[in-house]
Amino acid sequence: MNSPLPSEFTQKLSTLFGERFTTSNAVLEHHSHDESAYPPVMPQGVVFANSTDEIAQLVKYCNQYEVPIVPVAAGTSLEGHVLPIHGGIALNLNNMNQIISIHPEDLIAVVQPAVRRKQLNAELKDTGFFFPIDPGADASIGGMTATRASGTNAVRYGTMRENVLALTVVTASGDIIRTGTQAKKSSSGYDLTRLFVGSEGTLGIITEVTLKIYPQPENISAAICSFPTIVDAVSAVIQVIQLGIPIARVELVDQLAIQAINQYSKLNLKEQPTLFFEFSGSSQSIKEQTELVQEIVNSFSGENFEWATHPEDRARLWQARHNAYFACLQLQAGSRIINTDVCVPISKLAQSIEETQRDLQQSWLKAPILGHVGDGNYHVLLVIDPKEPKDLEEAERLNSRIVHRAIALGGTCTGEHGVGMHKIDFLVDEYGQDAIDVMRSIKRSLDPKNILNPGKMLKI
Amino acid sequence: MNSPLPSEFTQKLSTLFGERFTTSNAVLEHHSHDESAYPPVMPQGVVFANSTDEIAQLVKYCNQYEVPIVPVAAGTSLEGHVLPIHGGIALNLNNMNQIISIHPEDLIAVVQPAVRRKQLNAELKDTGFFFPIDPGADASIGGMTATRASGTNAVRYGTMRENVLALTVVTASGDIIRTGTQAKKSSSGYDLTRLFVGSEGTLGIITEVTLKIYPQPENISAAICSFPTIVDAVSAVIQVIQLGIPIARVELVDQLAIQAINQYSKLNLKEQPTLFFEFSGSSQSIKEQTELVQEIVNSFSGENFEWATHPEDRARLWQARHNAYFACLQLQAGSRIINTDVCVPISKLAQSIEETQRDLQQSWLKAPILGHVGDGNYHVLLVIDPKEPKDLEEAERLNSRIVHRAIALGGTCTGEHGVGMHKIDFLVDEYGQDAIDVMRSIKRSLDPKNILNPGKMLKI
Repeated sequence: MNSPLPSEFTQKLSTLFGERFTTSNAVLEHHSHDESAYPPVMPQGVVFANSTDEIAQLVKYCNQYEVPIVPVAAGTSLEGHVLPIHGGIALNLNNMNQIISIHPEDLIAVVQPAVRRKQLNAELKDTGFFFPIDPGADASIGGMTATRASGTNAVRYGTMRENVLALTVVTASGDIIRTGTQAKKSSSGYDLTRLFVGSEGTLGIITEVTLKIYPQPENISAAICSFPTIVDAVSAVIQVIQLGIPIARVELVDQLAIQAINQYSKLNLKEQPTLFFEFSGSSQSIKEQTELVQEIVNSFSGENFEWATHPEDRARLWQARHNAYFACLQLQAGSRIINTDVCVPISKLAQSIEETQRDLQQSWLKAPILGHVGDGNYHVLLVIDPKEPKDLEEAERLNSRIVHRAIALGGTCTGEHGVGMHKIDFLVDEYGQDAIDVMRSIKRSLDPKNILNPGKMLKI
Repeated sequence: MNSPLPSEFTQKLSTLFGERFTTSNAVLEHHSHDESAYPPVMPQGVVFANSTDEIAQLVKYCNQYEVPIVPVAAGTSLEGHVLPIHGGIALNLNNMNQIISIHPEDLIAVVQPAVRRKQLNAELKDTGFFFPIDPGADASIGGMTATRASGTNAVRYGTMRENVLALTVVTASGDIIRTGTQAKKSSSGYDLTRLFVGSEGTLGIITEVTLKIYPQPENISAAICSFPTIVDAVSAVIQVIQLGIPIARVELVDQLAIQAINQYSKLNLKEQPTLFFEFSGSSQSIKEQTELVQEIVNSFSGENFEWATHPEDRARLWQARHNAYFACLQLQAGSRIINTDVCVPISKLAQSIEETQRDLQQSWLKAPILGHVGDGNYHVLLVIDPKEPKDLEEAERLNSRIVHRAIALGGTCTGEHGVGMHKIDFLVDEYGQDAIDVMRSIKRSLDPKNILNPGKMLKI
């Protein structure tokens, strides 16, 4: 049980924020959960901030009274990032949803943290540019930055790590800093931008993000192709990557996930392990890429290579892929999903998936597999009945085996979802205690009172 | 004057390293300078280490006796990075020059810190892969990592920031940590890799580097083209970048630098502002790129578009570009060069160079300009007589104006050379004091006794 918020503190918040500071039960409840399977936890108060300056003042108060503060916008975390497990203030950023400026001439956009990725791309549409990072969910740019998100386009465009140029951040002491400039590269100072990207709200609160944007591709073409086994599919991808073919996306969907997608999206895809491809560029470049890919696919017994060059067909196909998570939730009534997220060196991907499949075959849980396989990243969607403790236990047992196998193969416990509450212990297995101690030193030096999203990422 | 090394300390080093620890004057002198114009400073001892474990033990002793330690390999720094200005130990890493492993199947190479970039590419030649980062000098991979180096290929392949996947680092307390895995992406933990990339030996000593490698391009083609004015040349580049044409390199060489190159490399290039282009990819893709570029070049009055598709012609051209620094040194007998290194948003590049040219016209110093203009990065090579204090003063005055102008235009004081001793004060102008204080907190938490390359990057 958390001690109540100090009354001096709540008075100061009321003065500063008026009705935008609230302890009303309905609002607290609304801020008690995310997309993870964790049970809800209520904050002790919610603040709706309108500006960086307001957040700086709020954090100063939180620091003074040692009250935890947990930033949240879209709330699409799968790992419990935004649950206020030590109480304190949920900082709702959704009023800060403005696209501040777009600079096509510098391939840059500057946005507030609660801007959603779809909103940004809608705004960019007529400029001839787009922002490629696409984690599936319509997440906020601030949240995507804080978790180093990526998704289907990362194989071509990289992750948030490569696509955030600079940040405005409020530190634990309530200072406002800029972590970089608008120059494309720099050797100036410690790389604070990359330190805050992926820091999950534990080192500072991101209040403005400068992003790279890209010219919209001249042409886009998509295709799907099914394989006798998942290992055949993955082996084809490995060869595509090793040849350096600049595919725009390549996604693996296993047999069970295809079944779920067919049901959910009313499609009629062949129920076999399947790759979704996207190609982009000049028509000549697409032609070259697809010829090479088709040849590789054939050599791994790929069949039913089907094209979708019309925008509507393509949109339908990728919408189905994006809805796969929700489709898989429908495999079992009233279920939730524990989602694994390992990423391994591409040469170990087939082995990693094959051994994982063997595990899954021995379990009673339904467990479709989706993968951003061009990056060596895949998700096992462990479908559980939240009312069955043994389901949760089994899911965590499988996840633990999948993670330890990935780490043994030179991989990481999380490719794109982040650590949150879920992977704190795996981090030690992945990095070793001495590296974790370096991370803890950094956390302690930047947030000595541990007010910033405590209980996430690291044990302090 | 530094106090002498404690005799207990030197005895321990003699026991550990035998003759690989020395205080001989000739060896100290050899470790007293780099490629910068700073006067030489001798270390108090030099250690030639053979392994990470040895370095860990050495750093433990340095920490115990509070002796500064400055790592060095190729010594090609332009900013005084490797000068032991507070005395202590110069850690010569040149025995650690092994390529540990190459994994073409994962597009990865693992190397010791003193491996030179040319050595790595010679080793990769027959594998069909290459390592693109090319700062001109045959620098060590460790040094390039520590300064976040880049060079001519960055416009296509990014900088060391994007191309280092993981590091082995010895911390100030002598612990050995791994900062990442061999997975292509990860959302796991704070981004220690990017924190150490560009930290200039001030946060830890890099003893192993995992790098991305790339398939060698199918075809390469090069061209040069001259322009009536430098602004025309730069405007053409800006348009190429904004259209997203995937050129491999584009380098600006101004009129004076072309004169220097003609003399030094016995060439007969037209003495006008000139762009060096390189294109790579399939022959069809090169054709598409060059047609577009040629059209743009024409619209900015570019002329004498000359092709070099034969490997020998291409090599001669790029060798001439790489030797430009040495060519410019020959513009004046007995000279040294103070090299500026600003990087600005590409839309501000023409303005930045134009205003800088106006400054230079009013100075007596010879000042050729070279630029990695696709990234918005350019160098003014301020040629000084090291025996003339007023030359040095004038060079620093011009550099200061160039830097402040770049910062005002949204740019950075250093695109690729790093901070070293030269840009410590500019960092405050670029980031503001609060951001610098965050950097200082990190430095203090990871190196509380300030033994790691003290006096560089930040004032502590």
